[in-house]
Amino acid sequence: MEYTSKKLSETKVFRDVIHHYIHVEDEVIWNLINTREVQRLRRIHQLGGTYEVYHNAEHSRFSHSLGVYEIVRRMINGVESINQELTPYDKTVAMIAGLLHDVGHMPFSHSFESISMVNHEQFSIDIIRDKRTEVNKVIEKECPNMAEDVAKVLKHEYPKMIVNQMISGQLDADRMDYLLRDAYFTGTSYGYFDLERILRTIRCHNNCLIVKASGMHSVENYILARYHMYWQVYYHPVGSAFEKGLESYFKRLRFLYNQGNNLVQSFTRLIPFLEKKADVIDHFNLDENVMMYYLMRSMNSDDQILSDLARRLINRDLFECKTIKEAGEKTKYLRMIEDAGYDREYYLLEGSNKQNTYQPYRGGSGYNISILTSDGEVKELSECSSIVNALVHGKDKKEERIYFPKPNK
Amino acid sequence: MEYTSKKLSETKVFRDVIHHYIHVEDEVIWNLINTREVQRLRRIHQLGGTYEVYHNAEHSRFSHSLGVYEIVRRMINGVESINQELTPYDKTVAMIAGLLHDVGHMPFSHSFESISMVNHEQFSIDIIRDKRTEVNKVIEKECPNMAEDVAKVLKHEYPKMIVNQMISGQLDADRMDYLLRDAYFTGTSYGYFDLERILRTIRCHNNCLIVKASGMHSVENYILARYHMYWQVYYHPVGSAFEKGLESYFKRLRFLYNQGNNLVQSFTRLIPFLEKKADVIDHFNLDENVMMYYLMRSMNSDDQILSDLARRLINRDLFECKTIKEAGEKTKYLRMIEDAGYDREYYLLEGSNKQNTYQPYRGGSGYNISILTSDGEVKELSECSSIVNALVHGKDKKEERIYFPKPNK
Amino acid sequence: MEYTSKKLSETKVFRDVIHHYIHVEDEVIWNLINTREVQRLRRIHQLGGTYEVYHNAEHSRFSHSLGVYEIVRRMINGVESINQELTPYDKTVAMIAGLLHDVGHMPFSHSFESISMVNHEQFSIDIIRDKRTEVNKVIEKECPNMAEDVAKVLKHEYPKMIVNQMISGQLDADRMDYLLRDAYFTGTSYGYFDLERILRTIRCHNNCLIVKASGMHSVENYILARYHMYWQVYYHPVGSAFEKGLESYFKRLRFLYNQGNNLVQSFTRLIPFLEKKADVIDHFNLDENVMMYYLMRSMNSDDQILSDLARRLINRDLFECKTIKEAGEKTKYLRMIEDAGYDREYYLLEGSNKQNTYQPYRGGSGYNISILTSDGEVKELSECSSIVNALVHGKDKKEERIYFPKPNK
Amino acid sequence: MEYTSKKLSETKVFRDVIHHYIHVEDEVIWNLINTREVQRLRRIHQLGGTYEVYHNAEHSRFSHSLGVYEIVRRMINGVESINQELTPYDKTVAMIAGLLHDVGHMPFSHSFESISMVNHEQFSIDIIRDKRTEVNKVIEKECPNMAEDVAKVLKHEYPKMIVNQMISGQLDADRMDYLLRDAYFTGTSYGYFDLERILRTIRCHNNCLIVKASGMHSVENYILARYHMYWQVYYHPVGSAFEKGLESYFKRLRFLYNQGNNLVQSFTRLIPFLEKKADVIDHFNLDENVMMYYLMRSMNSDDQILSDLARRLINRDLFECKTIKEAGEKTKYLRMIEDAGYDREYYLLEGSNKQNTYQPYRGGSGYNISILTSDGEVKELSECSSIVNALVHGKDKKEERIYFPKPNK
Repeated sequence: MEYTSKKLSETKVFRDVIHHYIHVEDEVIWNLINTREVQRLRRIHQLGGTYEVYHNAEHSRFSHSLGVYEIVRRMINGVESINQELTPYDKTVAMIAGLLHDVGHMPFSHSFESISMVNHEQFSIDIIRDKRTEVNKVIEKECPNMAEDVAKVLKHEYPKMIVNQMISGQLDADRMDYLLRDAYFTGTSYGYFDLERILRTIRCHNNCLIVKASGMHSVENYILARYHMYWQVYYHPVGSAFEKGLESYFKRLRFLYNQGNNLVQSFTRLIPFLEKKADVIDHFNLDENVMMYYLMRSMNSDDQILSDLARRLINRDLFECKTIKEAGEKTKYLRMIEDAGYDREYYLLEGSNKQNTYQPYRGGSGYNISILTSDGEVKELSECSSIVNALVHGKDKKEERIYFPKPNK
Repeated sequence: MEYTSKKLSETKVFRDVIHHYIHVEDEVIWNLINTREVQRLRRIHQLGGTYEVYHNAEHSRFSHSLGVYEIVRRMINGVESINQELTPYDKTVAMIAGLLHDVGHMPFSHSFESISMVNHEQFSIDIIRDKRTEVNKVIEKECPNMAEDVAKVLKHEYPKMIVNQMISGQLDADRMDYLLRDAYFTGTSYGYFDLERILRTIRCHNNCLIVKASGMHSVENYILARYHMYWQVYYHPVGSAFEKGLESYFKRLRFLYNQGNNLVQSFTRLIPFLEKKADVIDHFNLDENVMMYYLMRSMNSDDQILSDLARRLINRDLFECKTIKEAGEKTKYLRMIEDAGYDREYYLLEGSNKQNTYQPYRGGSGYNISILTSDGEVKELSECSSIVNALVHGKDKKEERIYFPKPNK
Repeated sequence: MEYTSKKLSETKVFRDVIHHYIHVEDEVIWNLINTREVQRLRRIHQLGGTYEVYHNAEHSRFSHSLGVYEIVRRMINGVESINQELTPYDKTVAMIAGLLHDVGHMPFSHSFESISMVNHEQFSIDIIRDKRTEVNKVIEKECPNMAEDVAKVLKHEYPKMIVNQMISGQLDADRMDYLLRDAYFTGTSYGYFDLERILRTIRCHNNCLIVKASGMHSVENYILARYHMYWQVYYHPVGSAFEKGLESYFKRLRFLYNQGNNLVQSFTRLIPFLEKKADVIDHFNLDENVMMYYLMRSMNSDDQILSDLARRLINRDLFECKTIKEAGEKTKYLRMIEDAGYDREYYLLEGSNKQNTYQPYRGGSGYNISILTSDGEVKELSECSSIVNALVHGKDKKEERIYFPKPNK
Repeated sequence: MEYTSKKLSETKVFRDVIHHYIHVEDEVIWNLINTREVQRLRRIHQLGGTYEVYHNAEHSRFSHSLGVYEIVRRMINGVESINQELTPYDKTVAMIAGLLHDVGHMPFSHSFESISMVNHEQFSIDIIRDKRTEVNKVIEKECPNMAEDVAKVLKHEYPKMIVNQMISGQLDADRMDYLLRDAYFTGTSYGYFDLERILRTIRCHNNCLIVKASGMHSVENYILARYHMYWQVYYHPVGSAFEKGLESYFKRLRFLYNQGNNLVQSFTRLIPFLEKKADVIDHFNLDENVMMYYLMRSMNSDDQILSDLARRLINRDLFECKTIKEAGEKTKYLRMIEDAGYDREYYLLEGSNKQNTYQPYRGGSGYNISILTSDGEVKELSECSSIVNALVHGKDKKEERIYFPKPNK
């Protein structure tokens, strides 16, 4: 029997700063938004500690998840060739995957993953498939075995390639939403590009996402927005210093746990992660509120390193970040830190950032952005755009950084 | 000896979505921003549970506090007659008061105050005056006894009336910032008004804030923005339902505490508040992260009422809100609730909202908005503006509401 | 045989600052946009001489006409109950009427009408009906006799009342577009209101336009935006001074024409209007460029009054505008003008502005804004909204003004 | 005796969509704005015929001129090192040069210049220096011989290099204003960059404009905004087609004038330009209204070519624009045109566009953008920015185009 999605009696809308309104027409989407796992995303910041730099960037992964869903919905409803390519079943799977793609995020995601074996992508898949979650129940009620297909999209293994590309590719709903959203909440203008025009010029071509030549300039703009957001927001030295501080804190936490420290033993919701056996229930139980509560309690630890690292994070006394230009510099900072009596394992951290822009062919041609020329030819973006060509073939931008406590403190 | 403020070697700026940049020139302001009490405001939502309705309204009181400071700074630096009226000491006091006016806020402020004897205004004053806080130390280091004068502003008792009015009055920096900021983060257009124009047309006149006639339309716009924000954002039924749920939760919490309930006994950071003896240290220790952690733990309480109320708040299964039109309705809802087996003390709540707009003379003439006509006369706003006059003399808007669990759950 | 509109092979779009994109799907609309009569609207300013006050307000009636069409199109396509009420024929008629409602405008419309017997509404109707215009040919080619029905809408006589209301009523596409557009181009924030929300909450009810209660706040906002735009933009003293200057100029022009003045005789494109026998061809031949050319030539007239009035308009040396507060003032200005040697007939002008806001019942109940309550009742707006009620019943705002040359010139 | 500028008794402001308010403090600026030559700029479109593509781009050179002045004023008042480098005299000269840099523009500038020997830069200089203009009188009244110094800035010969750079260089007030303004009025997002941040990070260094390293990302953004605006707005095929149509029209006009054509003989305000002896008075007398009036009259010419070209421009029946990819294509179009009976001299036009982005060293090092690194070194932008480096060294973008009448008409 043919699958058809159950419609709500009336379209529900959420007012949204990026999309103006987010429209929900399907019962399964509405019910998924109301699950505890999706509501939990309100308690995970979208940009980790970036609010320590851009104080307005306090938005959560919840609104981003709604935004990704909305872009997927508009791709399906607004682009005729996509609408025709996909069955009703594909469409529901795609919209659910958009909504749930980040459901597995943990507090301060990337730093946190350093103390747990699994990553957030794996947790997203687990939450979708595990029969104990509300998310799984809602999907399976809509259509038995659909959860498995949603999970496939997150693994980029859904049989229709275009569905995978809509959620995760070079021009996907995820990235388009977060660039616009993060630009709005940081108050920067770098992330803007013309989403409307991209949505008007994308097409489904041989089961792949493609952009008509008349949309090429908007795509150039999007690539450059990405470039700017990375260097000015996502790689901001102060934001990175917060993350590096968290890494040190988690490292010390694990060390103390292994030593049987009492305070850390009482962080019951963290223990499954420290023991690398966390499941979807443990995952639900640990959000950023809980993690911040543990951080606050750590300020009173009798372990000097743990309490100092926690205090730095809570009261925003962050590490200094320096760009390393010559090899010798690192030694200089190391000596300075050790002279000041700091343990180098926790107080001297390194990191590097490299140009994070469009790289055709690196992920196979399925990851390219393809342009449909007016003659009907398909070309890879950098063959058509002189500016993207320049970016792709220009000298790579790379930066080595070192983090340590500000000397005067 | 004359007081002069210590300047930073270079102006520091914060990029802000409302003011574009917030400028800090004074050392004392910079140091206050870095105190743990001001940093704590990042962990208190500006609009309590409003993010449950407007999902983008996840901003904190930290950015609002910076914004109020910035408006005060611009009033002082940009309005010649204010600049001349105030001494350097007055100016520093005013800017500090702007920055710290909300420092005493507790988690989910208004609902929370129902379980504690003091309110956030009192805590703001205590934090400024108490020698144990970083805030107090920074102010006293800038100038001995200045903390006392900052506290006076918050009590509306500073000798220069205009300083009190700039922080709290009918046309104050606090309200002007929050209307614009809350409009930005809810994504509504209701809260916009022309801040630039108001700042260009305010004057100091007989030591009071006054608006030149050429700015009257901007002030009308501001009054209407306020009207709309109250009815559409601040009084939104879903946001109020969240607050009413919290009230019930806190009521049950106190009841269980009095009964010696084990779980509640373990909420150590709450106990000073339940015992009505919380001081500034207890205040620092309780932020929204901690409160949310307690809420999550309450979901596992063996007290059915506490765990249900907590679950409703965490997973957004909020009370229904109905507007009462006739006297009999209340009885109908009461019967419905009791038939469904709910305890009416926690599951049937009432509330009322009334027109929250400009009310001249209610707080004494010092609270009026005064217009300086082109002939040099001073008139109260509603004498000049036909639309404000209509609002002031029109029928009062009032709404009685009742809150209870949605029947089908 | 059933009428169906011919569709373009591909939707055409115009990028627009208000609606982002204007979508054209029907051949008749596309062809009408390309007629010489519609293209002529690019040569008529939307706001007459308001650009002399708000220097950015240089937009033309062309973009406004596209905007009105777009709102009508969205009402039809986006509101299910309107979509169902209207036949394909009604829909095409409504969209054409939206596009053409202003096609009859003359240069500096309202002032210009003082020298011509007909007004722009009548010209719009004539242009639609006259077989010599491109507009008429395009409509008649789409469907014989349709032009007559389009004209009926402009006369508010189309048999389906809702079509008339969509183009011209209390909540019509015309006003909604111009408030938003004029706000954008004057750079004021007064004219904003939430168009999206209004479009989401309007309905067709008993063949009339009605707003669901959930949209009432947006309608209040719209009413207030209107109020503000009138008092701050449309009635701006400098803009009115420009119009009054034009009125004097046209009066003098007619006087000189009657006297057989050579220069005025050479203004061949104006003569049919001075002789009150202008037809649609004369109308096409007179746009603002031509009128401005005549104004420039008038600067060299040997009639001192004509040349002075023209110079004032071209070089922006406009009349002073004073608000009259007491009866005696007028005499004072009169004496001043006469003492300075000015001819009072051309150099002392009067005008009055009165509150231009929503006035229910004045135009019959078909002109009211009706609210559909959640109980299914229909109420007039001011019965539901306390702020609109206050406005409707408040003291009328009225202003008497006098205009004359600045004394020092 | 030291020069000091005369201040107005009160700062005057113009509300502006880009700068919010434009502030005028100096009497000479206020009086210059009120001259007939500056007011004339209201009658010259900023973007020529671009409004035929982007229908909202109807703004004039008047608002742009105010905007350039405002940016110069902010550079002077807001950047300490510039403020200190310049004397009061330099400052007034710089602000006047900003306001007047475009005063010499003629109708549809670039196309128009094809029939006149001089260009708009030369006319700007003439208007400033010629004693018959109001502009010259106002400047000379402020300070004798100042007009000569203002003219020097426009020739890039003012002794203080930084003044020349502020008005015309790689990062000048002119370009910064027009990119933002044209973006606003075309409704595109391509032209946005963070003007505030650039103004915060520019410095005067060795009498040259330089940008602190912390502003480099904003400058990158500005370079890319420029790139996008050129390819998407300024080189838009339809806008170019309008210009090419004008070129043909002017060519024919000259041809007919040389033949003694009666109609063209009656275009008295054009004749001085056709005879290449136009002076500042002739320049004042010819604005876009007059030119459009002549175009309208040309529609009735008995010369078929002139009337057809005029009709195409007035009623927007523009030439087709094709990008030439291979050498042979041109011949194909030529044959097509000739087969259709068109005169190839007027109906087949060519044009080319090339990458118009930052080109260091092309104009001498004074035209570079220089970055001041945190170590105090000065580097040329492309040495610091990998994205600008890629653009500068990437393959040049170039496009050959051909224009001709659409075949079906």
